[in-house]
Amino acid sequence: MQLSNRALNIQASPIRKLVPLADSAKAAGIHVYHLNIGQPDIETPPEMMKVYAQFDQKILAYGPSQGLEFYRRNLVKYYSRYAIDINENEIIVTTAGSEACFLAMLAVGNPDDEIIIPEPYYTNYNGFATWVGVKIAPLTTKAENGFALPSNQEIENIINSRTRAIMICNPGNPTGAVYSKADLQRLAELVIKHDLFLISDEVYREFIYDGEVHTSIMNLPEISDRAIVVDSISKRYSACGARIGSIISHNTELMAALMKFAQARLCPPTLEQYAANACLSLQKEYFDVILTEYQARRDLVYNALQEIDDVICVKPKGAFYIIAKLPVDDAEDFVKWLLTDYSLNNETVMVSPAAGFYGTPGLGKDEVRIAYILNSRDLQKAMQIFKSGLQEYINKK
Amino acid sequence: MQLSNRALNIQASPIRKLVPLADSAKAAGIHVYHLNIGQPDIETPPEMMKVYAQFDQKILAYGPSQGLEFYRRNLVKYYSRYAIDINENEIIVTTAGSEACFLAMLAVGNPDDEIIIPEPYYTNYNGFATWVGVKIAPLTTKAENGFALPSNQEIENIINSRTRAIMICNPGNPTGAVYSKADLQRLAELVIKHDLFLISDEVYREFIYDGEVHTSIMNLPEISDRAIVVDSISKRYSACGARIGSIISHNTELMAALMKFAQARLCPPTLEQYAANACLSLQKEYFDVILTEYQARRDLVYNALQEIDDVICVKPKGAFYIIAKLPVDDAEDFVKWLLTDYSLNNETVMVSPAAGFYGTPGLGKDEVRIAYILNSRDLQKAMQIFKSGLQEYINKK
Repeated sequence: MQLSNRALNIQASPIRKLVPLADSAKAAGIHVYHLNIGQPDIETPPEMMKVYAQFDQKILAYGPSQGLEFYRRNLVKYYSRYAIDINENEIIVTTAGSEACFLAMLAVGNPDDEIIIPEPYYTNYNGFATWVGVKIAPLTTKAENGFALPSNQEIENIINSRTRAIMICNPGNPTGAVYSKADLQRLAELVIKHDLFLISDEVYREFIYDGEVHTSIMNLPEISDRAIVVDSISKRYSACGARIGSIISHNTELMAALMKFAQARLCPPTLEQYAANACLSLQKEYFDVILTEYQARRDLVYNALQEIDDVICVKPKGAFYIIAKLPVDDAEDFVKWLLTDYSLNNETVMVSPAAGFYGTPGLGKDEVRIAYILNSRDLQKAMQIFKSGLQEYINKK
Repeated sequence: MQLSNRALNIQASPIRKLVPLADSAKAAGIHVYHLNIGQPDIETPPEMMKVYAQFDQKILAYGPSQGLEFYRRNLVKYYSRYAIDINENEIIVTTAGSEACFLAMLAVGNPDDEIIIPEPYYTNYNGFATWVGVKIAPLTTKAENGFALPSNQEIENIINSRTRAIMICNPGNPTGAVYSKADLQRLAELVIKHDLFLISDEVYREFIYDGEVHTSIMNLPEISDRAIVVDSISKRYSACGARIGSIISHNTELMAALMKFAQARLCPPTLEQYAANACLSLQKEYFDVILTEYQARRDLVYNALQEIDDVICVKPKGAFYIIAKLPVDDAEDFVKWLLTDYSLNNETVMVSPAAGFYGTPGLGKDEVRIAYILNSRDLQKAMQIFKSGLQEYINKK
């Protein structure tokens, strides 16, 4: 009786694994500001919550494996607002972005095949890769230059005969980097040249600051058969608990295979699709309010980090994360210390050690990811604690 | 650019693949009685629906990867009613039984490892096995003797060095067979002797007829470290669309690995757990009413089948399916014909060809699965149509 290698080897979530330390701090009466997870504090749209309150079907039945048709039809309209021209048969509704990522990897990768992903990357990609048995080939990007996409030559250096896809997260978790249309066109050239898929996780599509505009890989006609978009309503509508996402592609063979995968798990949650549907009518004004708020938070966190000696970070352009390189040897030790040994006026802060977001061993050891998902007042306090904690931590060493 | 082998090879759902034919029949104005899927017509408990109506949190947030603690604590009480003695850390809440099955296979199987499953079996096990890359070694059981568990010698004949687990569905979908405590003790002996896991899908736990009692593999102390139960509220509370299941085991190493798998997909739906929780207080009286109804339906369908010449079936003891062996060469052709070429008073019936439930090629070609999930009046009509359709089909051949 033995567990599978995947069971023995899967990485513990670097975001969630320190939660017990935070729990102990709270048990000791210390308030913990959580900047470690991407759970927004923004209210879920009342339009969505109203659907739950008013749902009057008597049987909470299975829906179609592909997702409810009216919801997919309304997703078509949503996507058209971003010049993404798809039809309802080019969408499969998934159980959150998680399932969309997993199914995308499953559809393109055989065991031991490789998917190139710029690092640092969303750590759960490791989990899905482990499930599927594919290897992530990390493409290193750097805090010093805002995690910009490396040159095509650098990317080609890690493409080999087992490479099946390049996968990006745009806007990026955990980097906050946003790829320009020119960046995406470079990637398009590469995937055509090397006959690969391009998978893009665009769950932060709307979270772009300073008036910039998002480009989807679906906006590049030259790779219409190679582009796979992974999507989710979790961050967009602050509805992380609904577990509704989608996967979209023009590639009919791929969609047919994904449909068979989708049939195996029957369907995504039914009522949650009715609820998600209510969000699709929210227009630009909805996001304008949220963006103003997040941009202020970003500026607050970025400015606070700039004020700390020897901290390196570049102002993020999107999503709601920032990676900071700290003047410490072991950022995980610092993060733990903040929870176990430090408090300021009986409060402390929790951030994520960034090493877990890198695929290359040893990278990111002096970095943390900060999710700016609290209101400005709390964020201000949290950053004061972070700053003074860091100074005390460095002094005691 | 090529799809993965899994994407190219995954079986289309034999339950769902004929849906387009049913849709065409409906478009032509024909009423279709659906006996092809396990979507009960029983109302979801009002206690559960009330939770959606009254939910007043402002943010639909992520829950814990393991599932909400109060829900797991109440699951402990639910399981204790079946003499299943577990604690809340021996439960992981999953996105329906589907995810529980998938994660169980993922935890015990490496690519090309084997899991023995009595056939015919729930067809989506094929899908999860394909995802994971494990092989299902089918253990053939037969309609003629009520799909009874084969002898230990027959089972040992297919155990080899790659075998990692035996997986059962008890009560069985699609067979309606229920394994006795003695059957399970035989399996326990085998998994101990050959150092395997025993996985039991017990989502139909309450659906046992004729006053018999269900035995869980969790009731066998000799395999407490080897037993993995896959569970779901979908059928139990007619809440298929909620997508809430669970996986339970006393094996701490296994649970630790499953927890890391669970973290990768963040969490099961949040509000659905609040809703599911409301069902856990439903007592025996709730199931008594449902069981009386299902037992009547079972008798109706079984008796109707008995009246048809040359149809072979054994009265099912549990779940809400029956497999019937028909006097036809190709049951799938008959099922299609019912949808495309036959109607009685402008009505027809849809059942599932059973071949897709077998792992051994060629088996089950003359069998269908009937889900008795409609009220008795509709079921009566549907079985009349089935009977007269079968007679006309045979006569025309």
